[in-house]
Amino acid sequence: MYQTLPGFREFPPERFRERNRVFRILRSTADLFGFEEFDGPILEPLDLYVDKSGAEVVDQLFWFEDRGGRKVALRPEMTPTLARMVGAAGNSIRKPVRWFTLNEQYRFERPQKGRQRAFTQFNLDILGEPSLGADAEVIACFVAALERCGLTQDDFRVRMSDRRIWTRFLELMGIGEDKHPDCLSAIDKMERTSAEKLTERLEPVLGESTSDFLGRVDELRSIRDEDELLPFFQSLSSRQEENEKSVELIESWKNFRSAVDALGLGACTVLDLGIVRGLAYYTGPVFEIFEASGKGRALAGGGRYDHLVEKVAGVSMEATGGALGDVTLLDLLDSRGLLTNTIAGTDCFLAIGGEESRPRALQLTQMLRQYGISTSYLFKSAGFGKQFKEANRSGAKVVVSVGEREIETDEYTVKDLGSGEQVSVPLAELGDHVRSLIYGES
Amino acid sequence: MYQTLPGFREFPPERFRERNRVFRILRSTADLFGFEEFDGPILEPLDLYVDKSGAEVVDQLFWFEDRGGRKVALRPEMTPTLARMVGAAGNSIRKPVRWFTLNEQYRFERPQKGRQRAFTQFNLDILGEPSLGADAEVIACFVAALERCGLTQDDFRVRMSDRRIWTRFLELMGIGEDKHPDCLSAIDKMERTSAEKLTERLEPVLGESTSDFLGRVDELRSIRDEDELLPFFQSLSSRQEENEKSVELIESWKNFRSAVDALGLGACTVLDLGIVRGLAYYTGPVFEIFEASGKGRALAGGGRYDHLVEKVAGVSMEATGGALGDVTLLDLLDSRGLLTNTIAGTDCFLAIGGEESRPRALQLTQMLRQYGISTSYLFKSAGFGKQFKEANRSGAKVVVSVGEREIETDEYTVKDLGSGEQVSVPLAELGDHVRSLIYGES
Repeated sequence: MYQTLPGFREFPPERFRERNRVFRILRSTADLFGFEEFDGPILEPLDLYVDKSGAEVVDQLFWFEDRGGRKVALRPEMTPTLARMVGAAGNSIRKPVRWFTLNEQYRFERPQKGRQRAFTQFNLDILGEPSLGADAEVIACFVAALERCGLTQDDFRVRMSDRRIWTRFLELMGIGEDKHPDCLSAIDKMERTSAEKLTERLEPVLGESTSDFLGRVDELRSIRDEDELLPFFQSLSSRQEENEKSVELIESWKNFRSAVDALGLGACTVLDLGIVRGLAYYTGPVFEIFEASGKGRALAGGGRYDHLVEKVAGVSMEATGGALGDVTLLDLLDSRGLLTNTIAGTDCFLAIGGEESRPRALQLTQMLRQYGISTSYLFKSAGFGKQFKEANRSGAKVVVSVGEREIETDEYTVKDLGSGEQVSVPLAELGDHVRSLIYGES
Repeated sequence: MYQTLPGFREFPPERFRERNRVFRILRSTADLFGFEEFDGPILEPLDLYVDKSGAEVVDQLFWFEDRGGRKVALRPEMTPTLARMVGAAGNSIRKPVRWFTLNEQYRFERPQKGRQRAFTQFNLDILGEPSLGADAEVIACFVAALERCGLTQDDFRVRMSDRRIWTRFLELMGIGEDKHPDCLSAIDKMERTSAEKLTERLEPVLGESTSDFLGRVDELRSIRDEDELLPFFQSLSSRQEENEKSVELIESWKNFRSAVDALGLGACTVLDLGIVRGLAYYTGPVFEIFEASGKGRALAGGGRYDHLVEKVAGVSMEATGGALGDVTLLDLLDSRGLLTNTIAGTDCFLAIGGEESRPRALQLTQMLRQYGISTSYLFKSAGFGKQFKEANRSGAKVVVSVGEREIETDEYTVKDLGSGEQVSVPLAELGDHVRSLIYGES
């Protein structure tokens, strides 16, 4: 019959509950850190993405011409929408802005382990704040979210890098700014690309200095201690003014790093300049979070993007943020036995003694629901035995029986399915009594 | 710069909270009635909708050919996806199935008051249950949701009708089954169409009996008391076997009506055969909910669709359900002053006495967050005065000050912004103390 499209998932209730429990943790974590949830359109003008990320992004988008002749795309990420919304609010908005979303994005990529075409992202962003303390705060919130899902800091690794360190390196290597995008893009792909392919890719840009360049890149990528950065930069240039610039940059990085440490993230964070991040718009610290083994696709990633709001909305505003995807996270939690499924079904069940008792039973059902007690009953006539069986199977904690005798006395038989105890309760006390059996109130 | 597409909405945090409060009410109401939430793909094969609703539905869809050459559509409704999912589970699923969704749908229609191109629907469905008690339960849940949003049964009207009554009427009028869809479609549009247009539309189908037909339709549409139905049917045919069929149908309707009454919906429900529902797949009771004035677009609508699951999934299963849209609901709640906005911001604020105190302040921030206390601080250095001003403006209830003196003694100054009281609290008691100030625990 009709198939689900490749890369799109169905969530029947048991799987929905599993994921929803995780989503509630993500939302409550964002709340603890003072992030406010927002939402935006799922469909946006295609240009919003092309102008930001270049024409090649089109190949990864679900895009089409709508019946009004507009080129539109299913959003592949939230950042441009966020930039437009915050930019539109302009200077009237209180800074720093701390906003988050938890909603679906779409990319036309080959579905594989850890990647779907439709995926939910938990996006955290802080705008209007130049201090790198904000960058540390974003990472701290992602780490807290992972911990509150049941993981420990031993289970994952935050690989932290900085676009400014790479830019500094390219400057000291004497590489012109026009060549930076090609170089950064090549460095970004080094982990997944052979040396031959990299050389092939960079030779048109760097000529015969390519091999020396790649050697230096390898040196920088292997540094794990920020104290080695200055000597490395000094090995590229001994000029005093260059040295001052390098010192200033490394001081800024160390400030960022000390905020990360003060937030208690020392055990799971590491300097790792192998992280560059593909998108062109990053301007400062960048990070990716991986499972501790290093295997698999990133759990989360992000960084500082100080120029994007101006590009999208014409308003200058610093920004930093990141995104955590549900596909890799749910896989990881599942592999650790951390996906738990709560029981469905109502707390209370009405057992109906014959059709003439049904109207009264329905009234009581509605009364109990108004008391905040989730309640159900069989739509079809059935014996008490079958109804109690159904109540047990549904996970109900209490059964209220409504038959001729009960209606006559207006006292109803209430059975606690846990203890097996059964008592007769007058109408006026019914709601409180059932509630006390379910929630243990007195 | 970049505009939002027509019919698509942005929800910045203050509007998100407003709507989210309503969504929480809808979800908790579904929970009280034992409905379980599920979700499905936002993009589906175009055929899933065309085969069900006919080729003309294409004009109202956002559809396109994806890069894999598939014709795909943004879902205009959840019912076909639901039918596929429940059908796929087949006989292994416990019946009756009570599922709900609260998610976005998309239709390419002209945006206007009460209608957007992207709208969220609260869908309730009960499958595998032939009893019309299930239809009453669906209506009761929508009514409870509206009441829990702050409306009363005086604020809205549930107009209830039955496709079977219209089919019976067409049979008694001697109109062949092949002409039923055209006739039902015309009757559905009567409220919004002139007599001339209707005649024009029906004459090719019914010929010269059109005017008599429309007169009879008007008679039936004006009936508000189910006891008038049998005499009306008898006026169309006095044959004994026809009469028996009519009696049986009216008995079934009255059973449905008595469940509706027992569920306490008597005051807001009315028999109103002017409701037909446009979609072809309904097979029994149908309903629409309107604001009491009758003005504006429907708040909700639905009905029984016993054949759709078989059509979509090849498994025979009865079904009834309905949908309530967020656009009309939010408009109505807004007009009644029932949209409330909760305050954002964190409960606790850390005031930092100079940069040398920042690392300790960040540690305490994380400790308080681990206690479940939402906490924030300024990323930039600032005097205590500015920080307290910021704390007040953000809606924080408590400020914890961390300066040199506090760090030395490991006792921190805690100010209750409500009472203005300020005390010094040792580290070990800090979490409990702040929590008691915020939540009033002891």
